[in-house]
Amino acid sequence: MKSAVVLVSGGLDSATVLAIAKAEGWECHALSVDYGQRHKAELHAATQIARALGAVEHRVAHVGLGLFGGSALTDASIDVPIESTGGIPITYVPARNTVFLSLALAHAEVTGSDAVFTGANAVDYSGYPDCRPEYLAAFEAMANLATKRAVEGSPIAIRAPIVRLSKADIVRRGHELGVDFALTVSCYNADAAGRACAQCDACRFRREGFATAGLPDPTRYQPGVT
Amino acid sequence: MKSAVVLVSGGLDSATVLAIAKAEGWECHALSVDYGQRHKAELHAATQIARALGAVEHRVAHVGLGLFGGSALTDASIDVPIESTGGIPITYVPARNTVFLSLALAHAEVTGSDAVFTGANAVDYSGYPDCRPEYLAAFEAMANLATKRAVEGSPIAIRAPIVRLSKADIVRRGHELGVDFALTVSCYNADAAGRACAQCDACRFRREGFATAGLPDPTRYQPGVT
Repeated sequence: MKSAVVLVSGGLDSATVLAIAKAEGWECHALSVDYGQRHKAELHAATQIARALGAVEHRVAHVGLGLFGGSALTDASIDVPIESTGGIPITYVPARNTVFLSLALAHAEVTGSDAVFTGANAVDYSGYPDCRPEYLAAFEAMANLATKRAVEGSPIAIRAPIVRLSKADIVRRGHELGVDFALTVSCYNADAAGRACAQCDACRFRREGFATAGLPDPTRYQPGVT
Repeated sequence: MKSAVVLVSGGLDSATVLAIAKAEGWECHALSVDYGQRHKAELHAATQIARALGAVEHRVAHVGLGLFGGSALTDASIDVPIESTGGIPITYVPARNTVFLSLALAHAEVTGSDAVFTGANAVDYSGYPDCRPEYLAAFEAMANLATKRAVEGSPIAIRAPIVRLSKADIVRRGHELGVDFALTVSCYNADAAGRACAQCDACRFRREGFATAGLPDPTRYQPGVT
């Protein structure tokens, strides 16, 4: 059985990607990254998702991206906006996907994996440069010059199976594959219990996705928000 | 004045690269990475080097590469070899330069820097795939699709000014630029005081470099080794 590293954030998108990788027959090494994000409830969710979807292991890598600041997701002095402003949003974390994919690449090399799966999505996150297909292709080209394993003839594929799907299509695909979305946390402002704010971009995309897909939305919200 | 992020490990190579960047007129943001390496004395050396060579700041990013294992430099159960065996050595850390350059890219974006300088060297470290010019070119191509700043029209250059230099040439160049090599630690088995083992690959390359360059070698060795 071929093995893959799957980046699992705790959110809806990467849970669906893990289910897709499992359905394709990969042995899945789930990897999450604690990068100093506000929404730590995601990491707890990731552990539950990895277990529920049958990953062979789940590891949490630690990297202090908060050292650099520059994003509402890692800098407590910048508020998470409740409305989109157009352009690249302040929730963009500089080079985040590059750092995450690099860590996944290291884990892929050590585990002898042939692929890294990411939940990058270019539809809802069109403002994040490191979610676009051309970026992912360039990362793959670099990765195949970067590692011992690749240089010795075993290339590593960077797989982004939902990169071009709408949120509704991701919800439908995850639903078909039996993902328990109640375990997932997408909100940028989630509380310690993983309950969502209903106002940030991530909440809005998620809610619209369930509505458009015509599927029940199991998201738990914080008291007093609707 | 244009600014650059310079990866400074505490070793001889990256100290020379910092001196080169300064000599070219860059305002230098020195960045070191604590990745769980055996040789922590390097990080202390990096702080001293950054100060001595006039960096505007020195930051240490933390990333737990030891989580993945697979290298003598991060896994205490694997001994550092005292002789080369050919091929890719066990001191190779999976995807290390990719992770380091990714962190430097994040810092470059936040600091508005136009370049990242690395001490990657393809001569002594020919066995490390992520020290080769073709790898660095692929990283640069990826980086320029990865970040907000690059997408908005300010590309980031990946500069490796010593990539094709021999150790003797690096020593000569650093000497010309006033690098105090007594501050630098190259050894894979350095003790807490930064004293070298004289036996690992890094020690051998370094010693031969000074000898070939015909310059005094200020390396401090552990008691009882020659």
